[in-house]
Amino acid sequence: MLKLNEPIIIVNFKTYIESTGKKAIELAKQAEKVSKETGAQIIVAPQFVDLAKIAEDIDIPVFAQHLDPITPGNNTGHILAEALKEAGVVGTLINHSERQLRLIDIQKTVELTKEKGLISCVCANNPATSAAIAALNPDITSIEPPELIGTGIPVSKAQPEIITNTINLVHQINKKMPILCGAGISQAEDVTNALKLGTQGILVASGIVKAKNPYNTLYTFANATQQQR
Amino acid sequence: MLKLNEPIIIVNFKTYIESTGKKAIELAKQAEKVSKETGAQIIVAPQFVDLAKIAEDIDIPVFAQHLDPITPGNNTGHILAEALKEAGVVGTLINHSERQLRLIDIQKTVELTKEKGLISCVCANNPATSAAIAALNPDITSIEPPELIGTGIPVSKAQPEIITNTINLVHQINKKMPILCGAGISQAEDVTNALKLGTQGILVASGIVKAKNPYNTLYTFANATQQQR
Amino acid sequence: MLKLNEPIIIVNFKTYIESTGKKAIELAKQAEKVSKETGAQIIVAPQFVDLAKIAEDIDIPVFAQHLDPITPGNNTGHILAEALKEAGVVGTLINHSERQLRLIDIQKTVELTKEKGLISCVCANNPATSAAIAALNPDITSIEPPELIGTGIPVSKAQPEIITNTINLVHQINKKMPILCGAGISQAEDVTNALKLGTQGILVASGIVKAKNPYNTLYTFANATQQQR
Amino acid sequence: MLKLNEPIIIVNFKTYIESTGKKAIELAKQAEKVSKETGAQIIVAPQFVDLAKIAEDIDIPVFAQHLDPITPGNNTGHILAEALKEAGVVGTLINHSERQLRLIDIQKTVELTKEKGLISCVCANNPATSAAIAALNPDITSIEPPELIGTGIPVSKAQPEIITNTINLVHQINKKMPILCGAGISQAEDVTNALKLGTQGILVASGIVKAKNPYNTLYTFANATQQQR
Repeated sequence: MLKLNEPIIIVNFKTYIESTGKKAIELAKQAEKVSKETGAQIIVAPQFVDLAKIAEDIDIPVFAQHLDPITPGNNTGHILAEALKEAGVVGTLINHSERQLRLIDIQKTVELTKEKGLISCVCANNPATSAAIAALNPDITSIEPPELIGTGIPVSKAQPEIITNTINLVHQINKKMPILCGAGISQAEDVTNALKLGTQGILVASGIVKAKNPYNTLYTFANATQQQR
Repeated sequence: MLKLNEPIIIVNFKTYIESTGKKAIELAKQAEKVSKETGAQIIVAPQFVDLAKIAEDIDIPVFAQHLDPITPGNNTGHILAEALKEAGVVGTLINHSERQLRLIDIQKTVELTKEKGLISCVCANNPATSAAIAALNPDITSIEPPELIGTGIPVSKAQPEIITNTINLVHQINKKMPILCGAGISQAEDVTNALKLGTQGILVASGIVKAKNPYNTLYTFANATQQQR
Repeated sequence: MLKLNEPIIIVNFKTYIESTGKKAIELAKQAEKVSKETGAQIIVAPQFVDLAKIAEDIDIPVFAQHLDPITPGNNTGHILAEALKEAGVVGTLINHSERQLRLIDIQKTVELTKEKGLISCVCANNPATSAAIAALNPDITSIEPPELIGTGIPVSKAQPEIITNTINLVHQINKKMPILCGAGISQAEDVTNALKLGTQGILVASGIVKAKNPYNTLYTFANATQQQR
Repeated sequence: MLKLNEPIIIVNFKTYIESTGKKAIELAKQAEKVSKETGAQIIVAPQFVDLAKIAEDIDIPVFAQHLDPITPGNNTGHILAEALKEAGVVGTLINHSERQLRLIDIQKTVELTKEKGLISCVCANNPATSAAIAALNPDITSIEPPELIGTGIPVSKAQPEIITNTINLVHQINKKMPILCGAGISQAEDVTNALKLGTQGILVASGIVKAKNPYNTLYTFANATQQQR
């Protein structure tokens, strides 16, 4: 069971070739291994097509990268909560900066996750939108300045005030909301810094998926979260 | 191998509860059985989450319901052609009336399917947009008047002129383009009529997925395509 | 000067034929007349094409129905803050239920209005999204349950708890935020009820634009806001 | 009256500060002066907010930059054909690369312009989408490779094959369709080249709006169209 009040690492597989198909399963297995060895909470968020096999084979929490605010019926090319649940998926990213939604759809999707027993991690681009999201009471809020995504320049170093402002604003609205941060995180010290600034962990993509040795890098990240507790 | 110059039935699973998860696999198996027994070409288009297992287990062509015009990289919550390919998917619906796209994205997605060796079936709402789609040279064009979707009133009976107009306009632009029709098809005679009007088959969803006995209904549809040859 | 701590009536002209072109100017003049006769604060929100003439001819505040989060430059078919300002427009609706935006665009547009000295009235569909909007600190929040828009069934009677819930949630985040309500308002008592429930006024469209005698109806609305002070 | 079989220059005002408000009127007057002095057909496409005054004051055709496929009614923040007509607007750009639409909305908007007696100029990014647009039978098709917009590198020089391919594909579908080209046009010789390649004129924005002397530059463009006849 995921503990929302302890450190969390979410690995977003995006649509990298290194995290597609068999390579996605391999990467998820490495994440599982790191989680078991370190005790750290690691969540993987593969592509939709890879979700079912990974959720079946792997014993760490699996998130979707997006969920549509729909119920069963006439919807073509959409993501149904019931399909995620049956595949063994336990939660979902919502409103990632690469899949941004209308406010009404974020709110409906958060409601839907509550109804269906899925964990929601809603992403925001800046402190102001993080606060707006906190008002919707998702399970987790994640702040990622989009200009740093994929740069290797960690938000926790380049713009620590974005993180602290976000934490202040979000906690004024919702004191216990777990806040993750992302963008540019590629080293264990970035994780340590993120936790020191008051976040509860990180949302990482290329920093792991495109690392020379994803297992090794993720291991150091996981260790950083455990030392920080 | 799919023969694009012979009758085709595409079963769109949409996000019906009757075509989600295990039920999706079950339904796909019935479609496979009908295809083997009748010799009819039947394609299934399940939800993204169910694609991989169905493509692995089932020996008839599997389509996605949508594909994003993207290449591997920084895309969260999108559908990557490479992921579909690796899962064993052979084609995709594009621009279904429940997932309509900007013209530029239809064009880019059709290009992408050609590059990646996927079969494209682009959907249109009316004769004019069908003609526009024909100019993009997809593998298949499908016409579905959205006001009839899910009604049980077959387009081939209610608005046969929509089908014949579409065929005329499309074939002026692209003589050999296979044209399917959909919306309201629930009986074998609707299939027969569709073929008589000059289409090459049908795109069906609730008519099969929500039929009392999907195997039986699909069997009669498949038979209708075989008698028409 | 608009006083944001006193009752406000915003008349949204939408794209009704009765509020297009010359008829828009005529309607705006009647709103001006009512405002002068009763002392009530009335804002008109005409279509973009009619904004400049109305703002020139009429001596009550004029709002746009939408603003794009853009700066001067390469944007075709968009609404520029500088163009609104130069035309004499003093504020704008944002995220009306008929023109809903991504969260990031609502936030950027609110920021833009602050920079440019425009008054922002951000619309919400329900209490949860109202709270999210309050976290963005616009000048005004307006709650309109979309299912009641244009029905003549006033939200203040049919769903008073939506209004009171909204006020509670919004004021927890932003104590002084003026809150308007809309949808189905067609009689003076609906205005009175809205104010009694704790709103600071109403956002009305068809209730005035399509009234038999818009001047008379608006007069009774304006009176209701003045008696309530 | 606009003659669709003679050379045409459309000046898209976009949302440049140099073509907003009073400056928009000034620029439109210079376009009118050039048109009268040279006999060239020049169309101006100002921002929505400036349309009414310009159409009233200026005696050359005025286009909108976008039109929504709607009828009078419950639409907030949209562009109504009736409002354009009453303001004296005679046509509209549709699907500019900075305001791209779903295929179904392009088709509905083209239909709407026919019903309402507005001239439609539908924009495309590449030869394939130009062909698709030709199948919808607008009055004018315009091809603009978006990567050249605002660069000063003229499409007629950098990628003449894009123009000739477009003309070939479009004329296969619709022999008489007038085709404009745009992107990077800043000198009279670019106009001459565009006409020599077989277009019927140009769609220009920054090349005029941001020219040191818009009147002078537009004059040379207009002259180029007249010499080419």
